[in-house]
Amino acid sequence: MRVEDAPDPVVEQPTDAVVRVVRACVCGSDLHPYHTMAAADGPAPMGHEFLGVVEELGPEVSGLSRGDLVVSPFSYADNTCEYCREGLHTSCPRGGFFNSAGVGGGQAEAIRVPQAQGTLVKLPVGEDSELLPGLLTLADVYGTGYHAAHMARVRPGHTVTVIGDGAVGLLAVLSARQLGAEQIILMGRHRNRTDLGRFFGATDVVPERGEEGIAKVRELTGGHGTRAVLEAVGHMPAYEMAVGAVRAGGVISRVGVPQYEAAPVGFGSLFGPNVTLTGGPAPVRAYIEQLLPAVLDGTVEPGRVFDRTVSLEEVPDAYRAMDRREALKVLVVP
Amino acid sequence: MRVEDAPDPVVEQPTDAVVRVVRACVCGSDLHPYHTMAAADGPAPMGHEFLGVVEELGPEVSGLSRGDLVVSPFSYADNTCEYCREGLHTSCPRGGFFNSAGVGGGQAEAIRVPQAQGTLVKLPVGEDSELLPGLLTLADVYGTGYHAAHMARVRPGHTVTVIGDGAVGLLAVLSARQLGAEQIILMGRHRNRTDLGRFFGATDVVPERGEEGIAKVRELTGGHGTRAVLEAVGHMPAYEMAVGAVRAGGVISRVGVPQYEAAPVGFGSLFGPNVTLTGGPAPVRAYIEQLLPAVLDGTVEPGRVFDRTVSLEEVPDAYRAMDRREALKVLVVP
Repeated sequence: MRVEDAPDPVVEQPTDAVVRVVRACVCGSDLHPYHTMAAADGPAPMGHEFLGVVEELGPEVSGLSRGDLVVSPFSYADNTCEYCREGLHTSCPRGGFFNSAGVGGGQAEAIRVPQAQGTLVKLPVGEDSELLPGLLTLADVYGTGYHAAHMARVRPGHTVTVIGDGAVGLLAVLSARQLGAEQIILMGRHRNRTDLGRFFGATDVVPERGEEGIAKVRELTGGHGTRAVLEAVGHMPAYEMAVGAVRAGGVISRVGVPQYEAAPVGFGSLFGPNVTLTGGPAPVRAYIEQLLPAVLDGTVEPGRVFDRTVSLEEVPDAYRAMDRREALKVLVVP
Repeated sequence: MRVEDAPDPVVEQPTDAVVRVVRACVCGSDLHPYHTMAAADGPAPMGHEFLGVVEELGPEVSGLSRGDLVVSPFSYADNTCEYCREGLHTSCPRGGFFNSAGVGGGQAEAIRVPQAQGTLVKLPVGEDSELLPGLLTLADVYGTGYHAAHMARVRPGHTVTVIGDGAVGLLAVLSARQLGAEQIILMGRHRNRTDLGRFFGATDVVPERGEEGIAKVRELTGGHGTRAVLEAVGHMPAYEMAVGAVRAGGVISRVGVPQYEAAPVGFGSLFGPNVTLTGGPAPVRAYIEQLLPAVLDGTVEPGRVFDRTVSLEEVPDAYRAMDRREALKVLVVP
């Protein structure tokens, strides 16, 4: 992991914008290439969560001006196609992900944003606002946690289990609370994280895993399990816990990127009890306008997931700290 | 497969009823034990679809009288617990399935029905009604097809693929049509069945299977696939076709009992395109009151799935004919 000088990004397509990054951060999913990418593969841009100031605009971008403070979802999209209109921006045919196909990353001084008009959302605060960390969570982790709860159709009075005490899991707790869940069981073992989970609305914390963890959830729910299970990890043991913790007729909603392809879905797991499996990469663009007001007025404080701040030069330390679970989520101030 | 004299069923529990069977039938799922059960296992009752006349009632059954013509769902349930109140009768803790735990089958002259008050639904017609075949489909195949469409949240204007041209698949077509689907693609290869599917509302028929079948569905939907896929088969190739035919953000709804436990659900199948997997054994009791009026007034004719009628003595021929695909669904008149 190293920091390198790269050419300044420029407008390449008429629908592009160039954004000077004001805040970025490191995502749990950034740790996957951190583990697997070889140095020999050469320099690669990293990061997909950022907010910043518009510096340049392509001629086809309207609704934005130079100097606007904007937040970007972790994937870009035109926001006009039939998928975007349904709120499924991650399936936009003109959309894509940062750090690929010639598009850079958010852990940088500046970044080129394709489909800028459909992607970027103007923020009604200044560069010096204390709300920037909370607003930055709209780029990924808050919208992803919300996607989990939304796809699980969490409603007032529902019971919910959240698997995983990373930033997404904790903000899935917050989202389930916002949607009116009555009982929210957070499965996680890191005390400082689960404490934040309680602050966000968790009513119970289960540090146990596997069969023991499932038994605890069942114990807390009169033997039934919870109506929704929000799975924010992505490994097979988390899937198995989800199957064990969900109530008959309930929903398992996954936002942890699955590190497996095949999983149990037959009579003995999902089919027999009419359990629904849903979720996927979050179309966070679909949720930004909806989640923004409560961040702006301080009703919710998703920015509390950041427990460390680094400069761009210190980003390698940030990866190390998150990888060792010394930091929950690291804010980057370029 | 043989027909044997068995002791007359009697009321054993105060919540039981004994019903004289007026119409029964053979289900596609009856063919599983037909293939696998050894004669050496001894005599076993068969069948789980029937309507008939109440002959005896336990002292705790109210709302029913001797002489009532009633239809029974393929599973019994109390219709009062929290699962039943949510419409998930197949998860009723006091419920169960016929042909097990001392409860007999529907391919008989009479049957004991546990939880009779919650299970049986009185029919406002006589034993000689021409509507009996249609009303009998409420016991399983119509309610199961409807469950597939209901769980997939089919709405007016939606596109739907139905996999399987058995009775359940054909009635899933009918149900999708009732819920307002605009395009209904039926995947099936038996011309007489797919013709009935067209009568029930299929707009397109795809006889191809596998990759070829998927390509046809994509071709018929501008490359997108359909918003809902109703899977009424239960074998892995049908699951794979469902994954290939579903639109991003869509729903695969299974009512064919899965003959597999593990299946692809990762980034490359369900997760990446935010596809939802749902379904299970249908709580048909939940749908009977809702589906009944259109059967009674002839708006829908689900009874058209029956293409052969046999006596109780001829039931072994009925299994043979269905197994050889010579009959779609066989009506039994004891």
